[in-house]
Amino acid sequence: METKMKLGILGFGFMGHTHAETVKRFEDIELVAVCDNDPRQLEDVRGAPFKIYTEADDIIADPDINVLLIATPNQLHRDMVLKAAAAKKHVLCEKPAAMSLEEFDDMVRACEENGVLFTVHQQRRFDPDFCMAKAVFEQGLVGKPYVIKSQLYGVNGFMHDWHVQPEYGGGMLYDWGVHLLDQMLYMVPGKVKTVFADLRNVINDVVDDYFRIQLLFENGLTAEIELGTYYLTPDRCWFMGGDTGSMVIRGFGQQGSIVRTRHLLENVPGKITMSASGPTRSFGPPEPGLLYEEPLPEVSVSHDMFFENFLRVLNGKEAFVVQPAQVRRVLALMDVVRQSAAEGGSIAFE
Amino acid sequence: METKMKLGILGFGFMGHTHAETVKRFEDIELVAVCDNDPRQLEDVRGAPFKIYTEADDIIADPDINVLLIATPNQLHRDMVLKAAAAKKHVLCEKPAAMSLEEFDDMVRACEENGVLFTVHQQRRFDPDFCMAKAVFEQGLVGKPYVIKSQLYGVNGFMHDWHVQPEYGGGMLYDWGVHLLDQMLYMVPGKVKTVFADLRNVINDVVDDYFRIQLLFENGLTAEIELGTYYLTPDRCWFMGGDTGSMVIRGFGQQGSIVRTRHLLENVPGKITMSASGPTRSFGPPEPGLLYEEPLPEVSVSHDMFFENFLRVLNGKEAFVVQPAQVRRVLALMDVVRQSAAEGGSIAFE
Repeated sequence: METKMKLGILGFGFMGHTHAETVKRFEDIELVAVCDNDPRQLEDVRGAPFKIYTEADDIIADPDINVLLIATPNQLHRDMVLKAAAAKKHVLCEKPAAMSLEEFDDMVRACEENGVLFTVHQQRRFDPDFCMAKAVFEQGLVGKPYVIKSQLYGVNGFMHDWHVQPEYGGGMLYDWGVHLLDQMLYMVPGKVKTVFADLRNVINDVVDDYFRIQLLFENGLTAEIELGTYYLTPDRCWFMGGDTGSMVIRGFGQQGSIVRTRHLLENVPGKITMSASGPTRSFGPPEPGLLYEEPLPEVSVSHDMFFENFLRVLNGKEAFVVQPAQVRRVLALMDVVRQSAAEGGSIAFE
Repeated sequence: METKMKLGILGFGFMGHTHAETVKRFEDIELVAVCDNDPRQLEDVRGAPFKIYTEADDIIADPDINVLLIATPNQLHRDMVLKAAAAKKHVLCEKPAAMSLEEFDDMVRACEENGVLFTVHQQRRFDPDFCMAKAVFEQGLVGKPYVIKSQLYGVNGFMHDWHVQPEYGGGMLYDWGVHLLDQMLYMVPGKVKTVFADLRNVINDVVDDYFRIQLLFENGLTAEIELGTYYLTPDRCWFMGGDTGSMVIRGFGQQGSIVRTRHLLENVPGKITMSASGPTRSFGPPEPGLLYEEPLPEVSVSHDMFFENFLRVLNGKEAFVVQPAQVRRVLALMDVVRQSAAEGGSIAFE
């Protein structure tokens, strides 16, 4: 008989609510209880068919729960995970998992010592745009890639809630950087040799709202991850350049293609008509039909797959997609990003 | 009475021909002679109303010439400039001006010692796209800029002629990088603190066909210059992000705008509908009408302005737009770019 997930959600804010909706779609997940110490977060679930707690210790002690999802403010993750592990609950922690490597190591150790499962909700490994890019990479659809860019540009500028408070893990590096870096490290194998980063507050007072991170991998590939909340040219874009083509994905996977050329420039005349670009033979406009597009690989993914994986792990059928060692690597990389930006120079990483 | 430019063009390949066409538009420029040691380059000017030489020493010695335009292969620039200066001709040298800083210093010294004028044909300071970006920068139209990107993407892949031969100053860094770096340093005042560069041969055997250069200026701004001949998503693009808006220019100035937002996100609801981007409140699609565009500043420029400047310098009316010290700075920066790419780390520059 399958072990079901009997879930408690500790911290019932935006993501807590999102999770409660998600798990409704699973036969093998029973939402046993939610908990928040802010009664306003619980107003919309009065009368719901699950228990409602206002004290963390009470939901942690609930014997009907076998998995605790920690969705509290980030600075509480460590303490809540330690208590959950001590109570022998399996742990699913929201991201960013920890405020420091030390905190994260405490969390991993506590789960290991108590023999409970531990993973982190890096659900954007199941984003369609990322999975398309990963498929292009793994299938070699642009040949040998030399650069991969992951860009996320917004228009809202100011941030909200804990995002504007550094002491709560605020700022875009912790919030979204942790996803974008996780995706890149999950896609590209091998060590990151060098990190060069720009991290700044463009219009926010104390938290970062723009970053551009260059990763130079040991295998020679470079990756660029750029995010701006005040970039004002909204787009989610992936670019992958390789030696047999280029890949572009726009939006969160809605648009994009692989672009190839029918032939390369082989014979350049000594004199040509001036183009809009002035006297250049290398960067004139392409002849009509020179470039052609191929569709991106189809992927069928959803964030539900994160929970499907958890259920299979719970039943000993597979390993976690999101391994603690991978989460730790991203946290370590974020520290190096901050260091590089502060020093204004590149840092050797691995 | 105005001093006219009595021009000799030494080296009559692609750019030599381009210059011969350009100067036809000037009353105050008389094309006295052209010279090439390859008779094929001279076939199309038989019977033209100017002298035709096949020996460099002969055109350099021509007493009717007061300005020599050096458009030979790059590795000959130094020797030709030294001979022209010794013959008391003013010198206009094609870019890339020299194969090394040492060569360039020799050239500058020779011109100074012989009391002749010396400048380099960095005519892309008069490109419309660049001049628009510079106007936006100088007029503060995006507030305080934090990042400027200059991108040039091509589809042709392979290069031609001297461009594929490193010993002739081949590769895209020398050919186009010298323009793109020159533009950036001409626009952004102050020292460059740090350089981090990626430089590679994607599909060419021995010369670079892709580079991405990060410059961290002392004033805090970062600039990125990226070029790929095999990027396959052809576009010339400028981006400038500031704290009151963003600027985009596409093509060589044909399209673009300044983008602003009517209001910033001020009050974020605790729960929102899921967007195509999944559960995010910062990167959902903008509400219709939130963003609006303003036109780019109008500029009226052409490459002829380079020669107009030379004529005014010849008549003591103004200084060269392209100063040797500026050209030297770009050459020095290109050396640091190569060093950074070779070492895989950032380099302190100025």
